[in-house]
Amino acid sequence: MPAAARGNAVIGQSGGPTVVINESLVGIVEAARLSGAIDKVFGALHGVSGLLDDRLIRLDDQPAATLATVASTPAAALGSVRRKPTREECLRMFATLRKRDIRYIFYIGGNDSAETANILLECARSERYPLRVFHVPKTIDNDLRVTDHCPGYGSAARFVAHAFVGDNLDNRSLKGIKINVVMGRHAGFLTAAAVLGRQYPDDGPHLVYVPERDFDEKRFVRDVALVNDRLGRCLVAVSEGIHDRSGTTIAESIARRAERDAHGNIQLSGSGALGDHLASLVKRAMPTARVRADTFGYLQRSFAGCISETDAHEARLVGRAAVEYAARATSGTVVLRRSAGQRYRCTTALVPLARVAKHTRQMPARFINREGNDITAAFVAYAAPLAGKLHPVGRLRGL
Amino acid sequence: MPAAARGNAVIGQSGGPTVVINESLVGIVEAARLSGAIDKVFGALHGVSGLLDDRLIRLDDQPAATLATVASTPAAALGSVRRKPTREECLRMFATLRKRDIRYIFYIGGNDSAETANILLECARSERYPLRVFHVPKTIDNDLRVTDHCPGYGSAARFVAHAFVGDNLDNRSLKGIKINVVMGRHAGFLTAAAVLGRQYPDDGPHLVYVPERDFDEKRFVRDVALVNDRLGRCLVAVSEGIHDRSGTTIAESIARRAERDAHGNIQLSGSGALGDHLASLVKRAMPTARVRADTFGYLQRSFAGCISETDAHEARLVGRAAVEYAARATSGTVVLRRSAGQRYRCTTALVPLARVAKHTRQMPARFINREGNDITAAFVAYAAPLAGKLHPVGRLRGL
Repeated sequence: MPAAARGNAVIGQSGGPTVVINESLVGIVEAARLSGAIDKVFGALHGVSGLLDDRLIRLDDQPAATLATVASTPAAALGSVRRKPTREECLRMFATLRKRDIRYIFYIGGNDSAETANILLECARSERYPLRVFHVPKTIDNDLRVTDHCPGYGSAARFVAHAFVGDNLDNRSLKGIKINVVMGRHAGFLTAAAVLGRQYPDDGPHLVYVPERDFDEKRFVRDVALVNDRLGRCLVAVSEGIHDRSGTTIAESIARRAERDAHGNIQLSGSGALGDHLASLVKRAMPTARVRADTFGYLQRSFAGCISETDAHEARLVGRAAVEYAARATSGTVVLRRSAGQRYRCTTALVPLARVAKHTRQMPARFINREGNDITAAFVAYAAPLAGKLHPVGRLRGL
Repeated sequence: MPAAARGNAVIGQSGGPTVVINESLVGIVEAARLSGAIDKVFGALHGVSGLLDDRLIRLDDQPAATLATVASTPAAALGSVRRKPTREECLRMFATLRKRDIRYIFYIGGNDSAETANILLECARSERYPLRVFHVPKTIDNDLRVTDHCPGYGSAARFVAHAFVGDNLDNRSLKGIKINVVMGRHAGFLTAAAVLGRQYPDDGPHLVYVPERDFDEKRFVRDVALVNDRLGRCLVAVSEGIHDRSGTTIAESIARRAERDAHGNIQLSGSGALGDHLASLVKRAMPTARVRADTFGYLQRSFAGCISETDAHEARLVGRAAVEYAARATSGTVVLRRSAGQRYRCTTALVPLARVAKHTRQMPARFINREGNDITAAFVAYAAPLAGKLHPVGRLRGL
């Protein structure tokens, strides 16, 4: 491996933002300032788009107070992008890199972003340009491989948990059937977080459906009726990515027009159609029931003021670690490893980009109950430390 | 006025819950314990339904620690109800009141609940039953008359403000047209709270539509296009109750089946249909734009862990005040009065039930801009102290 070349660095942010993605940004800037190998630190506006068009700003000379506030500000401070660069675009980016003497790229994002980082790395090799490329993980979906969990997930899980804590109490106050649609295309981690606030035996969500299991509409309606018979109400958590046995998402089969982004993903969020469809299924079977559906939408990844402290800390940590790894490695993805033992603790490690790029991870079977309509205590043990301590909830004696 | 009769009290909670409605409950219990006139304090389960069926629990012997946790727990701890009692039902309730020697009713709710309280009071008069009836205000809609504002509004406004702070940054990161539907049937107070977090000149929401003004779909699409031309993005806040010139709500005109509750209200929440409809209008006019819609739904009134301290304090205050008024008055609604002067301060007053019952209040004209598509600085001055200090947001230099 060649010795670390002295030069400048650039940071990009990519994919759906989170509320802690700027912690990673600031972590990289802070560590780069202390690094002996990195001079200037640039920020590319809207990820690879900024590299393509040479739209960069300086980050190493930002005031400390600015960086401190930006760190806890939701969404990508540099702007984000969903774009997989072509070979031709990569070559155009190298013009910018050469001009700015950039030898280090830190790309913050999910598995699509890891793929982009890998494309840039391969391009650099064929161009014989001495570039070190690091992927800094971020996603509310928690669907990256290898890592114990992803920065961004803990805060989104905290939002979903708090939403269900409140909505469960609301549903208990006024009764009825309530269906909440949670983000999650292929993995149910975020939807599963709906159970983190359950405290009393009758607390909802009473049913949870995730993309790891086939969704059967008849079975769903029967499940709801059973809970409603028992409790006089029913609160349901559903992933936006639930699909039938053929693999077709329910959202897809009801969408009048499916939009696709550059990575071939179907648009599932930003529409209330799935929730309304599921509510209408229940209404048809139980015509007198009060049935409502909410789709949590973009608040799950952007809501200000609902940040998990552990998540914020770890997002900063993986940013700093990326710079430290850059001193002794050419490329890689920073991952989190959970230490064994009672007390929650994570450290970082570096793995090859290709191990994380492109593919997604689903929830292990032990997180889902046998019937495929609820989440297990094993998941709660896994996710509770990530979301942090929740808002306390009390119940009057005699109720 | 007859002297205050010694006897027992009952508390009911009614209408859509809030995150601070239990502060008022606990405030009443605490003050009643200190009152010389009230012995036992009962809680009626699900408001007037509990009075009808004699489903009451004791509240005065609840442990202090339980009351402290319940106070900051979202949604109605006693259960809520949407029910306007008939004359016959009122008479049935008096059987419960007599049996339990209840001389004081404290009913926590909105304008429909004030009406219910008034019906109970009139019934007591005709029955010559010595009953004192107090309405303790609660509503996220802030649409009660007389009072400066309603407990419950500040926290819901805080939720909406934080949601828009985050979503504005998300929209700035990935661009596009984003439409958020906010609760508010007749009044735009909650939707207007979307602007409370605006800080930079290009911050959204860029357009705000409230039920106080007629909504014109063509005008809306034109407004969005203008903002998008200027900023390359557009964030919109829309009340669920927006209506056309004839007064028909847009939600109503697109609803396949409108549900009505006992007070004759049409169901607007718990469906993503309005947001999806508005998004499709924009898509039709701007086919290549990335257009998304979210409907905030029930989270606005139930989300755990997003409570305005001022709101929590005042919700407790109006509960305590109701008990104090009950020592020297027969009935009334507790209202909040804002003191003149720079520093925000509110005190309580008592007004006749009939002045608050049934009717709703809309936003004054000075809170809405001339074009009817934005909110003024006068509103911000009014609402900012109610929502409390928001999560700080920073922006990198050079952006």
